[in-house]
Amino acid sequence: MRTLITGGTVLGPSGGVVADVLVEGETVAAVATPGTFAPDTADTVLDATGKYVLPGGIDAHTHMEMPFGGTFSADTFETGTRAAAFGGTTTIIDFAVQPKGSSLLSTLDKWHEKAGGNCAVDYGFHMIVSDVNDETLKEMDSCVDAGVSSFKMFMAYPGVFYSTDGEILRAMGKATENGSMIMMHAENGIAIDQLVAKALAEGHGEPVQHGYTRPPELEGEATSRAITLAKVTGSPLYIVHLSAAQALSAVAEARDNGQNVFAETCPQYLYLSIEDLAKPEFEGAKYVASPPLREKSHQTDLWRGLRTNDLSVVSTDHCPFCFKDQKELGKGDFSKIPNGMPGVEHRMDLLHQGVVAGEISLARWVETCATTPARMFGLFPRKGIIAPGSDADIVIYDPSARQTISARTHHMAVDYSAYEGMTITGAVSTVLSRGTIVVDRGDYLGRPGHGTFLSRDLSQYLN
Amino acid sequence: MRTLITGGTVLGPSGGVVADVLVEGETVAAVATPGTFAPDTADTVLDATGKYVLPGGIDAHTHMEMPFGGTFSADTFETGTRAAAFGGTTTIIDFAVQPKGSSLLSTLDKWHEKAGGNCAVDYGFHMIVSDVNDETLKEMDSCVDAGVSSFKMFMAYPGVFYSTDGEILRAMGKATENGSMIMMHAENGIAIDQLVAKALAEGHGEPVQHGYTRPPELEGEATSRAITLAKVTGSPLYIVHLSAAQALSAVAEARDNGQNVFAETCPQYLYLSIEDLAKPEFEGAKYVASPPLREKSHQTDLWRGLRTNDLSVVSTDHCPFCFKDQKELGKGDFSKIPNGMPGVEHRMDLLHQGVVAGEISLARWVETCATTPARMFGLFPRKGIIAPGSDADIVIYDPSARQTISARTHHMAVDYSAYEGMTITGAVSTVLSRGTIVVDRGDYLGRPGHGTFLSRDLSQYLN
Amino acid sequence: MRTLITGGTVLGPSGGVVADVLVEGETVAAVATPGTFAPDTADTVLDATGKYVLPGGIDAHTHMEMPFGGTFSADTFETGTRAAAFGGTTTIIDFAVQPKGSSLLSTLDKWHEKAGGNCAVDYGFHMIVSDVNDETLKEMDSCVDAGVSSFKMFMAYPGVFYSTDGEILRAMGKATENGSMIMMHAENGIAIDQLVAKALAEGHGEPVQHGYTRPPELEGEATSRAITLAKVTGSPLYIVHLSAAQALSAVAEARDNGQNVFAETCPQYLYLSIEDLAKPEFEGAKYVASPPLREKSHQTDLWRGLRTNDLSVVSTDHCPFCFKDQKELGKGDFSKIPNGMPGVEHRMDLLHQGVVAGEISLARWVETCATTPARMFGLFPRKGIIAPGSDADIVIYDPSARQTISARTHHMAVDYSAYEGMTITGAVSTVLSRGTIVVDRGDYLGRPGHGTFLSRDLSQYLN
Amino acid sequence: MRTLITGGTVLGPSGGVVADVLVEGETVAAVATPGTFAPDTADTVLDATGKYVLPGGIDAHTHMEMPFGGTFSADTFETGTRAAAFGGTTTIIDFAVQPKGSSLLSTLDKWHEKAGGNCAVDYGFHMIVSDVNDETLKEMDSCVDAGVSSFKMFMAYPGVFYSTDGEILRAMGKATENGSMIMMHAENGIAIDQLVAKALAEGHGEPVQHGYTRPPELEGEATSRAITLAKVTGSPLYIVHLSAAQALSAVAEARDNGQNVFAETCPQYLYLSIEDLAKPEFEGAKYVASPPLREKSHQTDLWRGLRTNDLSVVSTDHCPFCFKDQKELGKGDFSKIPNGMPGVEHRMDLLHQGVVAGEISLARWVETCATTPARMFGLFPRKGIIAPGSDADIVIYDPSARQTISARTHHMAVDYSAYEGMTITGAVSTVLSRGTIVVDRGDYLGRPGHGTFLSRDLSQYLN
Repeated sequence: MRTLITGGTVLGPSGGVVADVLVEGETVAAVATPGTFAPDTADTVLDATGKYVLPGGIDAHTHMEMPFGGTFSADTFETGTRAAAFGGTTTIIDFAVQPKGSSLLSTLDKWHEKAGGNCAVDYGFHMIVSDVNDETLKEMDSCVDAGVSSFKMFMAYPGVFYSTDGEILRAMGKATENGSMIMMHAENGIAIDQLVAKALAEGHGEPVQHGYTRPPELEGEATSRAITLAKVTGSPLYIVHLSAAQALSAVAEARDNGQNVFAETCPQYLYLSIEDLAKPEFEGAKYVASPPLREKSHQTDLWRGLRTNDLSVVSTDHCPFCFKDQKELGKGDFSKIPNGMPGVEHRMDLLHQGVVAGEISLARWVETCATTPARMFGLFPRKGIIAPGSDADIVIYDPSARQTISARTHHMAVDYSAYEGMTITGAVSTVLSRGTIVVDRGDYLGRPGHGTFLSRDLSQYLN
Repeated sequence: MRTLITGGTVLGPSGGVVADVLVEGETVAAVATPGTFAPDTADTVLDATGKYVLPGGIDAHTHMEMPFGGTFSADTFETGTRAAAFGGTTTIIDFAVQPKGSSLLSTLDKWHEKAGGNCAVDYGFHMIVSDVNDETLKEMDSCVDAGVSSFKMFMAYPGVFYSTDGEILRAMGKATENGSMIMMHAENGIAIDQLVAKALAEGHGEPVQHGYTRPPELEGEATSRAITLAKVTGSPLYIVHLSAAQALSAVAEARDNGQNVFAETCPQYLYLSIEDLAKPEFEGAKYVASPPLREKSHQTDLWRGLRTNDLSVVSTDHCPFCFKDQKELGKGDFSKIPNGMPGVEHRMDLLHQGVVAGEISLARWVETCATTPARMFGLFPRKGIIAPGSDADIVIYDPSARQTISARTHHMAVDYSAYEGMTITGAVSTVLSRGTIVVDRGDYLGRPGHGTFLSRDLSQYLN
Repeated sequence: MRTLITGGTVLGPSGGVVADVLVEGETVAAVATPGTFAPDTADTVLDATGKYVLPGGIDAHTHMEMPFGGTFSADTFETGTRAAAFGGTTTIIDFAVQPKGSSLLSTLDKWHEKAGGNCAVDYGFHMIVSDVNDETLKEMDSCVDAGVSSFKMFMAYPGVFYSTDGEILRAMGKATENGSMIMMHAENGIAIDQLVAKALAEGHGEPVQHGYTRPPELEGEATSRAITLAKVTGSPLYIVHLSAAQALSAVAEARDNGQNVFAETCPQYLYLSIEDLAKPEFEGAKYVASPPLREKSHQTDLWRGLRTNDLSVVSTDHCPFCFKDQKELGKGDFSKIPNGMPGVEHRMDLLHQGVVAGEISLARWVETCATTPARMFGLFPRKGIIAPGSDADIVIYDPSARQTISARTHHMAVDYSAYEGMTITGAVSTVLSRGTIVVDRGDYLGRPGHGTFLSRDLSQYLN
Repeated sequence: MRTLITGGTVLGPSGGVVADVLVEGETVAAVATPGTFAPDTADTVLDATGKYVLPGGIDAHTHMEMPFGGTFSADTFETGTRAAAFGGTTTIIDFAVQPKGSSLLSTLDKWHEKAGGNCAVDYGFHMIVSDVNDETLKEMDSCVDAGVSSFKMFMAYPGVFYSTDGEILRAMGKATENGSMIMMHAENGIAIDQLVAKALAEGHGEPVQHGYTRPPELEGEATSRAITLAKVTGSPLYIVHLSAAQALSAVAEARDNGQNVFAETCPQYLYLSIEDLAKPEFEGAKYVASPPLREKSHQTDLWRGLRTNDLSVVSTDHCPFCFKDQKELGKGDFSKIPNGMPGVEHRMDLLHQGVVAGEISLARWVETCATTPARMFGLFPRKGIIAPGSDADIVIYDPSARQTISARTHHMAVDYSAYEGMTITGAVSTVLSRGTIVVDRGDYLGRPGHGTFLSRDLSQYLN
């Protein structure tokens, strides 16, 4: 099976060149000057003239069918990865969630069960470590051997995922030993819980209080603290879903000092704000996620962070809950609103919109959405670049198409869109996953189970 | 003419893949999985198994046959570019030096004359603006049209190249208009001249005084000042030959703030120190360049800066003067020692040594020495990457070879080496310039005049 | 009762003037040019010619007979305040220690009982809040009414005094309301406990491990965190016994930003180092206190902090445990060594030694040791200055005397001195407490119970 | 001659106490509890009940009858010092201005001539060094001997007062030797001149252009540069009339690092803004001074700087030019407007207004306006404090009086007020200069020539 993609501008993390891409089976065989390969030697020819040909997007932060207080996030691995494919994302790294008291490996088994045979595109796992003890520390080695080389911990959510600084220190010690990556949800959950209790006691239950009780200072604080703990242990650190200028500034300082500290942000922090959270009639609940949406001024800082590489990755933290029945659980008590927003389908488009707006270059679009996540999480050069031998995860993107985001047309299994009505310049034309066309001009040509588990190496970014 | 390079690890700024590279005429036709192209379809097959195949190095800071106080730097364009080729550097950007009172365009003509027909590899020019006035400001536009899109100014060398802050402001204003890059030699020359006069008045004439009278604080100060002037005008800024932690910290802060500020360092600042400048019997004179070699502690900071990308480029500031007759002009009066050191031949090797030592990754080696200078100075993707359509400037590098640097064996036209006796792991095997093999296993197969002038676009790095 | 102190240099926080001081009863009646008052109108004339006449020292951080793991700190209020008097300290502010589960007011009663009738000099109390709940928060108001306007919390010592960030937030909220001061022991105790457990598990039980397991980064971290929590609540913050450059830098930054953040250091951090903690034969145990003694380089930073006023106060954290029987509890397990060192007697001398060494000015000596603690803790102008109406707490200090510190000669009830054998230039000649001579040329003329409880106002330093 | 001031609150830099002040002849004899001295033993009794009794203000930055481009600042030493006295300022330090080509000592003679016999209050001189050469460097020693221990230099005003960085370095070297203070007008005049030329060339001649062409970044830059030059030489540095947040931040950083760097600001930067400069009909010209008035946001930073002591002193830069005939010289060409504003009379009132508004404490009012300038410029404890032996320069200030500032009522010889119509809470009641009542309830009781020259010591602030 041979596919030739002709005449497009092939994009990589340094820029683009007009070239043909030859795919043989599941991988890229060659990138060549146009005409190098005769069209008739290929089974399929895709004309990409006037379009971008870019490595499939990698969303390093999704939560498919995640258990949450008796309910589950609304997308299954099947619906979620299909939506990802529609949006030009051909790899997700989802989170296996260790329940307290259970083992990491049994957790991993459970997640393999959930995802296996269901995914439209390739997938990997990070492991959420909720329970740090001698046993789970040992299991971290086994996880790495099993292709799960990154471990997420929480400074937020006391009583649920929360780890103490001592537990974090232990896990970081292990990461220093085995070369794995510690990912951190950096908000001071203990302090936040106190602010939440105070707000509720004072009768403030509306969604916007979710934002007021999680001030950006407490994200900055936790970020600084995580950086210090990483420094004390020598561990690398990856800050997930950074939303606040205060946290960005802590990350930038650590990076200037040469510490192995990295951060991702998400489209919602670039485009949405606490004003959305303040929408009346409980509509703000649609925008409840943690960290919360911030004042608009933070958006400027985050775009700058993407340019300066203090923010290296854009992920979605895709964790959709339906407005009806799910978000509504928190009517009158914002602390009961399931935390999370849908987004896996629109990351590539929303960031391309940043290119259109002049916020980032084409090269940074590809780098933050594909190449860097691949290198960060041990998938490069298999993923994240169009190069000989790489998986043929390829997106043909039409930069001049126009589309309007809407829950009526999106493919995520959730009843609202956080970007309802937003018009985007640019749209996915065709998506290949390991050489197979899975989306073409709006049609889904893939199948559940095409996507395979990615056993990941250690991060390729550590100094 | 078709050349096939087989089985090597093709390196780019994100890492490497094992692939074959097909060269057709002067450019790269394809990068493909090994075996994609049959060897017998190629005129020449170069076996790169076990070796690196990387884009030819770009040295963005050289001074060939530069006039200096009645003498000239020792390498001509012919000898200098040949030495560059031996060292795996296939592009130099040299400096045309406007004498006060003359025009930029006539200066450019003069440099075209010097270089034309003499170079072993491709070359471009930056323009040194010594004389800012209404006429030369207009000529900056003409220079950009003529492919010279970067202008160097000096905060050092009063009475020679020195520009006042007002003149810098004017030139920066023009750069803001026409999109060109301002390059800055950032040392406070006015203050330094006072320290030099004081040292000489106190009877201190030895070479190490060159270092004492140019303290790192005065490089930090000038760097900060240049950054402020750039901010006031909106101009981009590229700090040349950054040597001091103080300057690095100013650059890092500006970059964190999202300003278009960039910096290069040079191998001599990474490997040599003021202890070399203090060598007895006037031998220190060999190491006289500006900024001066610093205390060793700065080396740690500079390597870190290369990792954090606060230092984006490694150039050489190649400006050789023979010890005999040239350096000796300053015996007894360090201020008369011609400023400059040889280096164009050894940059790729010295930085590969940084890879061997674990200071930087392979990807950063290629990025700082080839890809970034190409993007910074408007040569990408023609130069700086191995991609379809790019110039076939390719280095086959043997990472396990061993060599010892010595004036006896180097190809620069200068009677000493700053790295005499230093042993390097790694060595250039074969060098192609625009598809032609110019160096192979230590033999020079090129010719003067093979190298052509590169008309450069604007920098591709501006946000 | 009228006392005239003649001919001395009367020191205050801005410098000194030669003047006579007239004391009437318990307070200062006048400061006047020499000769203004005829000696024969006074009951007592003290000739201070050639000596300093300064406000009595205020030690804002002592722990007399403090309960600690079944034992008590070795000095009673009687012995401790007598030692203070010998050393020129005429006010102490000790800490009432709330046991978990008890009330603040009953704790205060207990401390009044301990101290009442026993003190040689005046005393006040801070309250240690170990148990934050609705009841104790209300009691904080009552404490302020009862003259206890400052509350200490611990980020260290989990399970003992430790408060969570949520509890700290609640107490800070109360302090914001009632204007009181939050004092913080800023070390990340949760992380430290993990490092301690690790060290012990690895068989490292010697005293120096106390230092290794409490790295300066974890003091810096906790200090930053406390500053953020204070910012979120609007509360003032006073960092006790700051020992590390990292913490100093966090304080300096907050102060530059105009936040009401203050810090004290202690003589042991200015003069002693982790090398003392590493003394063989368990002798290091003498130097076990928290935060631990640091690498010597921190001393330079702390002296600078005293000059820049980023360190505003010098206190002792006097908390003596005898080497025999008490410190020995931790033989083989450093975590069992009672934390604390003696020091109340030597603060004024040790800081005068800083004047002699050129580290601080005479004015800063008085300011950091007397005036600022008085203003910081609501005692000014009753204490901390020699001015009409102020308590006649006066020290006549001979700047040219010489003395050697030794356990053999000191007056603290502890069997070792941390400064054994150290020679000091300067010594106390005479000490008045509220107009009464309590120490004169080495003789104790005071009595238990002379010292009265000081009901303190709110801090006079808040912006 | 004996004066008793009874019942007031005597203020000093740490706060206030209710006390009587006894003055004998020209100096303070005693500060005592009320009633210590019988009223009938005094020649004069001033009842200060309910009022503040504070050390006379010290204005360390005035320009009386300063030559400027053919004209002179409008106040003579006689009118200016009388206005100062009305406003509670009993000491001024004026600037002797060396014309290029002349000597420092002859300049000093000239200024002695101008001021001698004319002043209402005591006065000292700083020396403006315009011409750095071997001769004037030697004369700096003689100036110190003659009681002029501070030297001002300009990074602004090329061709007039401007010194190059080399000249600054030489003068700083001399200051390091002889212990004197370097004062700096820190604006990058070279860059500013370019911006001015550009604005004029583009036809922008109105007063507000004075502000646009002197952006705050160029004050920040010059301040940083001066700090670096001071660091290189080891010299202390005092930044005059700091107006911009950027400069404040440079000063704060240097101070955190322990460098002997100090700064003053002026009332106009605390209360006025570039909006005043933009007033129509050329009225903006009234507000032309350098550095220029800034955006209002800087005011917040400056008040904070006064609280944090990064701004240690408030001076006026009093340099009045009449609107008519003088300011009008620059109609149509802002660069010809004489630079300077009146202010010597209202500094104490305007800063008291800061106390009323809660920006600073009473203690800081006295400290920034009297005590610190005295210590900074070698006048303490003769000036700047009410203490035995100090000059009886005393202000009785009524904190509850109300007054409205107006050119119709002020005593400065200038035809406008920069604060016209502003209402102030607080007003001077009585002013003593060296024991003599010079102002009482609005009446001038002094005389020209009462004020004497103050031979100053070295700064008492150097670490």
